[in-house]
Amino acid sequence: MQFTVTHTEGQARRGVLHTPHGVVETPVFMPVGTRGAVKAITHRDLEDAGAQIILGNTYHLHLRPGDDAIARAGGLHRFIGWPHSILTDSGGYQVFSLAQMRKVTEDGVTFRSHLDGALCALTPEKATDIQAQLGSDIAMVLDECVAAEEDGGGRAEGGGRRTEGGGRRTEGGGRRTEGGKDKDHVREAMERSARWAQRCRTRLLQLREGPVDGVLVTNAGQAQFGIIQGGTDPALRAESVQRTVEVGFDAYAIGGLSVGEPVEVMYDVVAHTAPRLPADRPRYLMGTGLPDDLVECVARGIDMFDCVLPTRNARNGQLLTAQGVIVIKNARYTEDPLPPDPDCGCYTCRHFSRAYLRHLFTAGEMTGATLLTVHNLYFYLDLMRRIREALSFGSFEKLRQEFHQAFSRR
Amino acid sequence: MQFTVTHTEGQARRGVLHTPHGVVETPVFMPVGTRGAVKAITHRDLEDAGAQIILGNTYHLHLRPGDDAIARAGGLHRFIGWPHSILTDSGGYQVFSLAQMRKVTEDGVTFRSHLDGALCALTPEKATDIQAQLGSDIAMVLDECVAAEEDGGGRAEGGGRRTEGGGRRTEGGGRRTEGGKDKDHVREAMERSARWAQRCRTRLLQLREGPVDGVLVTNAGQAQFGIIQGGTDPALRAESVQRTVEVGFDAYAIGGLSVGEPVEVMYDVVAHTAPRLPADRPRYLMGTGLPDDLVECVARGIDMFDCVLPTRNARNGQLLTAQGVIVIKNARYTEDPLPPDPDCGCYTCRHFSRAYLRHLFTAGEMTGATLLTVHNLYFYLDLMRRIREALSFGSFEKLRQEFHQAFSRR
Repeated sequence: MQFTVTHTEGQARRGVLHTPHGVVETPVFMPVGTRGAVKAITHRDLEDAGAQIILGNTYHLHLRPGDDAIARAGGLHRFIGWPHSILTDSGGYQVFSLAQMRKVTEDGVTFRSHLDGALCALTPEKATDIQAQLGSDIAMVLDECVAAEEDGGGRAEGGGRRTEGGGRRTEGGGRRTEGGKDKDHVREAMERSARWAQRCRTRLLQLREGPVDGVLVTNAGQAQFGIIQGGTDPALRAESVQRTVEVGFDAYAIGGLSVGEPVEVMYDVVAHTAPRLPADRPRYLMGTGLPDDLVECVARGIDMFDCVLPTRNARNGQLLTAQGVIVIKNARYTEDPLPPDPDCGCYTCRHFSRAYLRHLFTAGEMTGATLLTVHNLYFYLDLMRRIREALSFGSFEKLRQEFHQAFSRR
Repeated sequence: MQFTVTHTEGQARRGVLHTPHGVVETPVFMPVGTRGAVKAITHRDLEDAGAQIILGNTYHLHLRPGDDAIARAGGLHRFIGWPHSILTDSGGYQVFSLAQMRKVTEDGVTFRSHLDGALCALTPEKATDIQAQLGSDIAMVLDECVAAEEDGGGRAEGGGRRTEGGGRRTEGGGRRTEGGKDKDHVREAMERSARWAQRCRTRLLQLREGPVDGVLVTNAGQAQFGIIQGGTDPALRAESVQRTVEVGFDAYAIGGLSVGEPVEVMYDVVAHTAPRLPADRPRYLMGTGLPDDLVECVARGIDMFDCVLPTRNARNGQLLTAQGVIVIKNARYTEDPLPPDPDCGCYTCRHFSRAYLRHLFTAGEMTGATLLTVHNLYFYLDLMRRIREALSFGSFEKLRQEFHQAFSRR
């Protein structure tokens, strides 16, 4: 993996990331394809919308169809027919948000599959092996996700912003981690995550050396990212950065945010953490966010994003536009001949009216979900394109101001 | 509407149909877009698959979003953003298959909406007005559908081969219409349909003259097709042809088939009826069928087809191929790296394996339904393309033999 920063403006950066499956221009938004498919959209429409890299969920793919089968098919790219870059998470977040009867020890985590209740175990080594078999271009380390942990069973149905397929967004996870015992837990989890990170790295280096335990490595050029934890405590975050960077990864992600904390707190943690990460490596903020979050976190030094909001909200009938959210089922759109977003150049906005899209949702036609997904992803990806362009011309701050003038967060 | 037969081989014909929205090459298959959208596929993918004309269901669109609203939006083409040709059925078939508490009189039919139970009435004049407001390129007359009638309440859930959105196919409707009292009913319905046809024609001619009762005519060039009824009785069919052709329509359809009668009976009725229809007008067989039905009915003189099978079966995980049906969820495809149909040139077959498509269905990803719909429609439309080409070269009979050698009807 190669990464070059080509332009900067304040903390914001424009760059180019080379993976074994192509070039990714940053800042980049990665659509979430939990089970090897971004929901409600074909790969072709995803390419048309400008997607350069998508995210797959290790937990889901490990359970079904299984990383062994995917490895035998030649890896995830070949299995799902997506020739561009793929990042896989480690499965940790899903274990902590979806699985039942979770038990964490120093060795790893045991849990029951949300599909059939089967007993499963995930260790740092196992998470690394699974991703080696999937052959994603970027693998993530296994980390202990505190906020999800603290929120307990209430999230089993949801899945938060990093897993497609659940119902509601996960709210209220982060706030409980601030007080006494919870703060100890945040520290413990951060320290354990750092030790797990080391084990993940050691395992990947072993796999790069040669065959280990029958693991089929399907992408020899796979990169591995460490994950910074530490909740909302600046000192813990700084310590997590130090310990994780010491291990030495290809790049680093900020985890444990967008789990219910106030958005200003999230911005502060990002502003505090991102500049501490190596400047010559991409910085990935996991599971964020709304369009204004992307703008604000680029301004704080983030290069990579993923979130289920554009795709999940599309299926719920919500369009994200430069002005804010449009709830397409509202009666006011019954005979509205305007495109969803008159300024948008996507297939949906160039061909269809709000009235027609509302009709599709009212009638329960799944094409409605597809057309809104096409728009929302185009809007996110186009926003990132405009951000990159502004960074080239030194006009990012101007774009940022103009964006906030138009955009209303509900 | 202009129609020219350019090639013939036996009873089979190749032709060109000009509508206000473009050229339709026949024989043609029309995908069914019940509520103004062909299920699980975007217009763009539909165009890519080669669709020249789609079908909209008058009954559904009248109930929701309403033909008044669609007329105010400029007609169905503009409302749904489909710039090519559209045919609308009259709503009669759906009233007889979906609606509850149906009551037929000479004036028309009253029924309760399957959506909210509201009391509605459909007369020949009303069916003509609604379609004038929808502004389809081809409107159909209101007919009394006996087979659906005889099958009664059992079909309320289904909807048969001419309406998307129901569950199972409708079986067993036609057979009960052969005996004594039922035969009387078939004759009565045929005769009433002929009288209704005259009223539909009179109404359309009035609407062409000038404004009537506030009806917004959104497509001045709309054609109107009569429908031949008469069940499986050759004499009744011949009489229906005579009476309906006497009225004088732009073209004619054969209705009341593919409602459960044995396939050989259907072929016989088509072979008996089609040649009796004016040779210089397209002949449309309503609601048929499987791929071999298309080949056999082209051989018997049919120019136009519609059916929900390719789209409905796709959503149920069934691929239609030159060899027959593939049930993609079968365990044998778990690690099958082949494309669904190795001989097919569609987007799905060029990019995805059976194993991946099976995974999408097993995981409940709606993209699976989309990819199978893309394939099935491409297969149907490509078959029609090949039929047209064969007719140009006088090799249709050869294609027909080769088709049957490869294709297995389950």
